[in-house]
Amino acid sequence: MWILRLNMTDRSYRLEEVPPAYRLLGGRGLTSTIVHDEVPPLAHPLGPNNKLIFAPGLLTGTIAPTSARLSVGAKSPLTGTIKESNVGSVWAADLARLGIQALVVEGQPKEKGKFWTALISWNESAKQPKVSFSPADEYVGKSLYDVFPQVHEALGKVHLASVGVAGELGYGNSGVAFDDLHDKPTRYAGRGGMGAVMGSKGLKFIALDTAGAPRREPANKELFDQGRKKLADALGEHAITKPKGGLNTYGTAVLINIMNEAGGLPTRNFSSGRFEGAAKIAGEAIFEGNKIRTKKELYNHACSPGCIIQCSNTWYAEDGSEIASCVEYESDWALGANCGIDSLDDIAELVRLCNAYGLDTIETGTTLAVAMEGGVAAFGDGKRAIELVHEMGKGTPLGRLLGGGTALAAKALGVVRAPVVKGQSMPAYEPRAVKGIGITYATTTMGADHTAGYTIAPEILSVGGSADPLDPSGKADLSRAFQATTAFIDSTGHCLFIAFAILDIASGFQGVMDEVNAMLGTSYTVDDAAKLGAEILRKERAFNEAAGFGPAHDRVPEFMKYEPLPPHNQVFDVPDEALDAVYGKL
Amino acid sequence: MWILRLNMTDRSYRLEEVPPAYRLLGGRGLTSTIVHDEVPPLAHPLGPNNKLIFAPGLLTGTIAPTSARLSVGAKSPLTGTIKESNVGSVWAADLARLGIQALVVEGQPKEKGKFWTALISWNESAKQPKVSFSPADEYVGKSLYDVFPQVHEALGKVHLASVGVAGELGYGNSGVAFDDLHDKPTRYAGRGGMGAVMGSKGLKFIALDTAGAPRREPANKELFDQGRKKLADALGEHAITKPKGGLNTYGTAVLINIMNEAGGLPTRNFSSGRFEGAAKIAGEAIFEGNKIRTKKELYNHACSPGCIIQCSNTWYAEDGSEIASCVEYESDWALGANCGIDSLDDIAELVRLCNAYGLDTIETGTTLAVAMEGGVAAFGDGKRAIELVHEMGKGTPLGRLLGGGTALAAKALGVVRAPVVKGQSMPAYEPRAVKGIGITYATTTMGADHTAGYTIAPEILSVGGSADPLDPSGKADLSRAFQATTAFIDSTGHCLFIAFAILDIASGFQGVMDEVNAMLGTSYTVDDAAKLGAEILRKERAFNEAAGFGPAHDRVPEFMKYEPLPPHNQVFDVPDEALDAVYGKL
Repeated sequence: MWILRLNMTDRSYRLEEVPPAYRLLGGRGLTSTIVHDEVPPLAHPLGPNNKLIFAPGLLTGTIAPTSARLSVGAKSPLTGTIKESNVGSVWAADLARLGIQALVVEGQPKEKGKFWTALISWNESAKQPKVSFSPADEYVGKSLYDVFPQVHEALGKVHLASVGVAGELGYGNSGVAFDDLHDKPTRYAGRGGMGAVMGSKGLKFIALDTAGAPRREPANKELFDQGRKKLADALGEHAITKPKGGLNTYGTAVLINIMNEAGGLPTRNFSSGRFEGAAKIAGEAIFEGNKIRTKKELYNHACSPGCIIQCSNTWYAEDGSEIASCVEYESDWALGANCGIDSLDDIAELVRLCNAYGLDTIETGTTLAVAMEGGVAAFGDGKRAIELVHEMGKGTPLGRLLGGGTALAAKALGVVRAPVVKGQSMPAYEPRAVKGIGITYATTTMGADHTAGYTIAPEILSVGGSADPLDPSGKADLSRAFQATTAFIDSTGHCLFIAFAILDIASGFQGVMDEVNAMLGTSYTVDDAAKLGAEILRKERAFNEAAGFGPAHDRVPEFMKYEPLPPHNQVFDVPDEALDAVYGKL
Repeated sequence: MWILRLNMTDRSYRLEEVPPAYRLLGGRGLTSTIVHDEVPPLAHPLGPNNKLIFAPGLLTGTIAPTSARLSVGAKSPLTGTIKESNVGSVWAADLARLGIQALVVEGQPKEKGKFWTALISWNESAKQPKVSFSPADEYVGKSLYDVFPQVHEALGKVHLASVGVAGELGYGNSGVAFDDLHDKPTRYAGRGGMGAVMGSKGLKFIALDTAGAPRREPANKELFDQGRKKLADALGEHAITKPKGGLNTYGTAVLINIMNEAGGLPTRNFSSGRFEGAAKIAGEAIFEGNKIRTKKELYNHACSPGCIIQCSNTWYAEDGSEIASCVEYESDWALGANCGIDSLDDIAELVRLCNAYGLDTIETGTTLAVAMEGGVAAFGDGKRAIELVHEMGKGTPLGRLLGGGTALAAKALGVVRAPVVKGQSMPAYEPRAVKGIGITYATTTMGADHTAGYTIAPEILSVGGSADPLDPSGKADLSRAFQATTAFIDSTGHCLFIAFAILDIASGFQGVMDEVNAMLGTSYTVDDAAKLGAEILRKERAFNEAAGFGPAHDRVPEFMKYEPLPPHNQVFDVPDEALDAVYGKL
């Protein structure tokens, strides 16, 4: 495998042998290590000295189940911290098949507002990947729903990582879009403004053409097959991940009713933990609504090849045509409950627009809600919300104000109640109602991020144990354990959702370690997972500290400490000492 | 003297004896101490737990020369740091005469967007000040040039501290406006968003009525008179501060030609140190232009009672009517050279609009320049700049984006070259051309601020010694010494401009210490000045550290480290160790 460097200053590239120190690293472990090693901590995120790194997981590109995940890393323009944004896409598997352990995009063109494309394909004679750059003028400023077919028309069977207009415009709220299995731009490395970093490099998209590229094979095929079977069995068995189980039937939006019941579904810019319209936008409503509109019982589909959980849903219009895929729990909540919007049609249209413009659905919804609190629109006004996302896509002053993300919009609009940590907005779990996830938000190296340490599993879902969500005690240890294990899983290339199964079914966890050992020739045990993850967290934390982040930034916003949240009427009462203990005892 | 607390939650007030620990504190020393002692470092600057503090200097309200300065302190919404914004106004002297050592505005009304006024007057029977609150509806949303006469009409002979629409709207770029000696809103505690803090308290203005209030008398009148005479003599003697000297003739804008010559006049968003239009906007051009337009040789006037430096100018239209006062060097530069604008008429109109809307001229100019770099207007287009300031006054989306200040606008517009430290824009001296002032910008507790440690004195003006501006060596010590002495002067109530005289004329400095000792009954020596200042800096720094600021924030923006500045073609080459030594060795 290689490190492939694209230098956007002069549109050149360089293939490097993977250095020995990086040999056992993949996914988040590798992106974070390269950011840590190569990006000056005080570099401007959109300046020439930041780097954008794509790394497939250790198992990505193999036939390990649910393993087509990619890490996208850089210094974030949204947070100023290190960032890993994780996405499942065929592009991830393609990158691995091209032999690229990390793709590092460096430098910056002199020409402002000018964009290029990069096509990476397989050079069979040299047995290595090659790169060609072209001007991107014909793709700039367009909906990604138009760009993707246009590229497929021009370049044939390629897969894409592309920024939308949000990334071109340098928005803090801008993701990188990837193909789903229908060649549509619906899979997102959404969080943290990775799109703006890519845009700042003058890079519109990276197309991968794997024609002729070899398969990725494990060193120890027998062990690998044992491992992947153990994991597949666990996934097939667990109620959440099995076929026609919770995720496959209702998608991640199965959580709407659950979180609403728990009083932890942030509503109208985090002013309540209950949304009266929850049932109308819940996963169950999507499933049942689609049944009526399509006259079929539709289970969900995979976002990427080899996924056996298959949690990606679609919401259909009354005439049976597709409005948007995927209405994830986070998107459904952010653009729905958190904006007081209870129309799935409006929510799906908002999701579609985020996909079209290259916006993160979470940050978009939380920003709209702050704008609503700031008087820009009324809570619940879905049509106005749609207009506002169009403003973002058009780059109007209002659009730019919103495109900067929730923290920036709140500052510009004078809104005190900004639900952000380190500049990134909180996702769909209320810290005042679920204390452990609040600790994760506050302390993770990523800014507020549920995927960084999903304590919801034990606190709400009784997965991997069980804990009272309202009780702060012991939650620092819980969050730390989840954060460390997550950093490991994010490095394997497995989707984080395997955790539902492997936390409850020990053989599944062993299966993952077998797979990894089979790939790397290592002999890691299950106990090593958290240790390997902790190593990654320490690097991320070291970068952040050098970039100016310390304990004072590991806090939830002040209003959550004095404003009790209905229905439990609790504030965030985790002591600072507990927050400081998360990394203090790492 | 008292501490007077206004509680804006219920519009009540409380007079407190000054606690013994605060007895010897005034001005910045007192505002910073109260912020340090009472504001939670992680409080939201516009939330209910921030406090806005007004403190006259130790000598303010006496007949000490040039001593009508006021400190306005809070946690800043622009920077997130502690903030002291300093202004000269008759209001400062009035506050002292009412016996108020510190006025602390606390709490926050439940009603959003509703404003009140506070009138503080003298209760002769109780021999103490009293307060009355009234709804401010009739004053909200208007130009301060209309509000001030309206209040004078309604309340008679009062003096005002008021926010404009910028403060009402919660802009990071919003100052507090005070009367000049013609009852106009031209004196500003401009920097750091103090207007937004006041606005967040629902407080439109504070009117002071001193009728019946006693004079403020020193404890030791004889010593006091000796001291003030020594100081007055020094001020009258020094070339910069004497009558018809540099400041009295050309105003602070005398620096335009000097800084341009030195290659340190930031031009077109800090892309050059020389402005080809400098001579057209220089203090000399103002003096000569006024001579032609008014057919008089006009020397400058005092901003506040008792000032013998008298550096405030006015720029007149062709018909001899006033366009605006005061076209300070900073305003002239920010709205002129830094925007590539060389028309004094346009610059003065921009100053007038900043006064009308309650905006800081420095932050406004640096924000306009960033907007110009971001394509919102062309450099040099004064008419478009005027339109943009009107956008800010109207609170349009574009106006809000700009009203948030330079750092926010740069982020929203995707502009990498944001000349800010800790979120506050740099003033009119280029760090790459004058290394010592860059150290002050980087390290002061205030965000980029020339008044926090004006090393320009020795580096450019040969005042208080002489140092090569391009040479970084020894400048950490220089900046530290200036920062400490400044914190002391900012506490006395003297205008910082006395430093020109007292740094060169030892008896002047002794005079200041005599005045202070006469007031307080202390026996401070000249050597104590920097020690007393250092005490203040340590409190400010402690607050900032608890608010999340550390060495990584004591840096100039990255672009100044890789982009050489014409004409000297130097980068900012002060080593981080020198920056860290400023407070490290305090």
